[in-house]
Amino acid sequence: MTLVIDSRTGLKRLPDSEFSARLARTRQAVRDAGLDAILVHSNEADFANVRYLTDYWPLFESAGCIVPADGEAILLIGPESKEYAEDHSMLPTIRTMIAYRESAEPDYPELSVSTFGDVFDEALGGRPLHTLGLVGYSIMPLPVYDGVRAAFPGVELVKADEIIIKQRVIKSPAELEVMREAFRMSEHALEAVVSHIRAGMTELELVGLIQKELYAAGAEYEAHAVYAFAGPRTRHAISRPTHSPIMPGTMIQLNLGARLAGYSPSVGRPLCIGPMPAEMRALVEVGRDAHYQTMAWMRAGVIASDVVSRFYDYIRSRGFGDHLLYGPCHGLGMMEVERPWMESTTHYPLEENMTFQVDTFLQTPAFGLRWENGVRVAADGVETLSDALMDIMELPL
Amino acid sequence: MTLVIDSRTGLKRLPDSEFSARLARTRQAVRDAGLDAILVHSNEADFANVRYLTDYWPLFESAGCIVPADGEAILLIGPESKEYAEDHSMLPTIRTMIAYRESAEPDYPELSVSTFGDVFDEALGGRPLHTLGLVGYSIMPLPVYDGVRAAFPGVELVKADEIIIKQRVIKSPAELEVMREAFRMSEHALEAVVSHIRAGMTELELVGLIQKELYAAGAEYEAHAVYAFAGPRTRHAISRPTHSPIMPGTMIQLNLGARLAGYSPSVGRPLCIGPMPAEMRALVEVGRDAHYQTMAWMRAGVIASDVVSRFYDYIRSRGFGDHLLYGPCHGLGMMEVERPWMESTTHYPLEENMTFQVDTFLQTPAFGLRWENGVRVAADGVETLSDALMDIMELPL
Repeated sequence: MTLVIDSRTGLKRLPDSEFSARLARTRQAVRDAGLDAILVHSNEADFANVRYLTDYWPLFESAGCIVPADGEAILLIGPESKEYAEDHSMLPTIRTMIAYRESAEPDYPELSVSTFGDVFDEALGGRPLHTLGLVGYSIMPLPVYDGVRAAFPGVELVKADEIIIKQRVIKSPAELEVMREAFRMSEHALEAVVSHIRAGMTELELVGLIQKELYAAGAEYEAHAVYAFAGPRTRHAISRPTHSPIMPGTMIQLNLGARLAGYSPSVGRPLCIGPMPAEMRALVEVGRDAHYQTMAWMRAGVIASDVVSRFYDYIRSRGFGDHLLYGPCHGLGMMEVERPWMESTTHYPLEENMTFQVDTFLQTPAFGLRWENGVRVAADGVETLSDALMDIMELPL
Repeated sequence: MTLVIDSRTGLKRLPDSEFSARLARTRQAVRDAGLDAILVHSNEADFANVRYLTDYWPLFESAGCIVPADGEAILLIGPESKEYAEDHSMLPTIRTMIAYRESAEPDYPELSVSTFGDVFDEALGGRPLHTLGLVGYSIMPLPVYDGVRAAFPGVELVKADEIIIKQRVIKSPAELEVMREAFRMSEHALEAVVSHIRAGMTELELVGLIQKELYAAGAEYEAHAVYAFAGPRTRHAISRPTHSPIMPGTMIQLNLGARLAGYSPSVGRPLCIGPMPAEMRALVEVGRDAHYQTMAWMRAGVIASDVVSRFYDYIRSRGFGDHLLYGPCHGLGMMEVERPWMESTTHYPLEENMTFQVDTFLQTPAFGLRWENGVRVAADGVETLSDALMDIMELPL
């Protein structure tokens, strides 16, 4: 067991050595890219890059992290999170800044905070900042960008997501251990909740029961907003549950995950109260076949787009080709959806210890489904990270 | 009862007339500001501005909304949310765009999506776009900003949050009805969960019980990440719960809220298992006195910074002045924290139907607390939106 219990919080986390290795790799990559430093951004919804380096994840406020080519990394937080960050951050140097405040933009006139000038001077030991890489570009907000440019008018700003993404794509033994445990927790919650599903309860009542089981299983948070959809809402690739009741004979779709040490799995199962009508059962069975086929096509060295082609061909051959929204897998790690995706345009080879959600999503005009499990790519196939309740699920009426 | 049950989702929402009035006011404000249109941004964590105009709130992906000076408003979503948006959006025109995709940046090569050129041409009926207001500036990400500038190289982009914020600050009768009901749900969840608190359960197990009660009470989601902190973590203004056990004789702090139709209240209570030690009880009583005093100082016409001064003076007079982090109230509405704040620098007069969280947060070196309730500003004082369990709470051992 390489996980440790943090003495400050009682939470399981990766060992110190994992974080120091990440920082060392990042510094080297910053140097290799000819950058003076990177500025990493995270928010409450997309916390992964800052947490990867520091174990800190923001809420209400946002967060940043400076990693210089040489010198000490610094965690940047909003004005109200000092004590919280001191309990969670693996970096000893933490600075509060207005740029990371809540979106309601309070002024905090009584507080003393740092500026971008201060924190880059500290991180770079007074050396000049010529070229800065931005990590988390797709979520970096204008006040952070504006603030850096105002403090360093001549600075060259370049998108530098790859510096962290490249590391996140291949999981370490310790990360895999966390992910296996997070999937076990998620399966326990799924098994516990299935016996409580009753006709007439609403999707959101079911979400409440799932939440209780996720935390009882040891989650630190929901890995993603819980999915509990019935009837036509099972057609939605992305959605939110409602107060519509769950009725017998209609498709019910659950996706849930227990976040652990920042890792965010999901297990997805279609089910029905009472017997599935023939058309529903046919889709459920085709989906499950495609799901297992996808796993069978994956191993280190296989080209991702080839898995996609085979999946599309398979679904089309079964008559459901009109309702394909996306490829059969997406990357899995701190975010339940992260790089790399598998699409018809992604021609990279799968590598050992990449982790994916095999996310078999099919829609018909009346309903849809999503069989979803985690896998680790191995030399000769995949290690499945979840496999509970994969039988066709018809609950008692 | 002005709320309606949406026939698509079974969810309670504001009536159609509320949304059409918002759009009409917004168009007028866009014209008054000399803008051709505004582009509004929301993400999963900060959904308010887009939801205010459309009732749509994103997850995994982000969302935008164009409101032109003249012409039809358009909801902009990511590629996977079409069916979800069709079930929730009050705007009939919905366009999918790559700029609002997940942060993992999939390409969706098989899908047809709109460009910024397309959607502004549609919204403006082919008229040129010279000046565009940006709403949600503090969370607007670089790809949206870059995308607009690439499509319209000569466009002038200006921060225009005030166009929506000014509307959100004063609540309509229908909004107040939603907020009163959301607070009732939150109080029901609080009362239901208090009887289940036992020494030895962890903060996160308690979060699971709270989640179950929030959804059973009718929530559509948690109004904010649930707070259940014990011991030293009660000093944290912002934090996340842990797997540390809740022990007798230590401070326990709960903050929870049921989100309803996009409105996000919070009720906050300090409590103890067994008798409170004298020092803890003293802080709890001072905090409660300050909390009620703050409400007594508020009414339409009072200057916000005067409430802050009186609060600071009161706390200092009681000997806790070293541990003040922020003012006594912040705006409340769709976000649990929104404009306007009350700070020593905010010299605006309170207006009737502004709504605030009275958020009495105090820290000592050993522990902290937060008494928190919602209020509506009235001509002659405040209407309290929550008041359950305001006695000093010492649970049976």
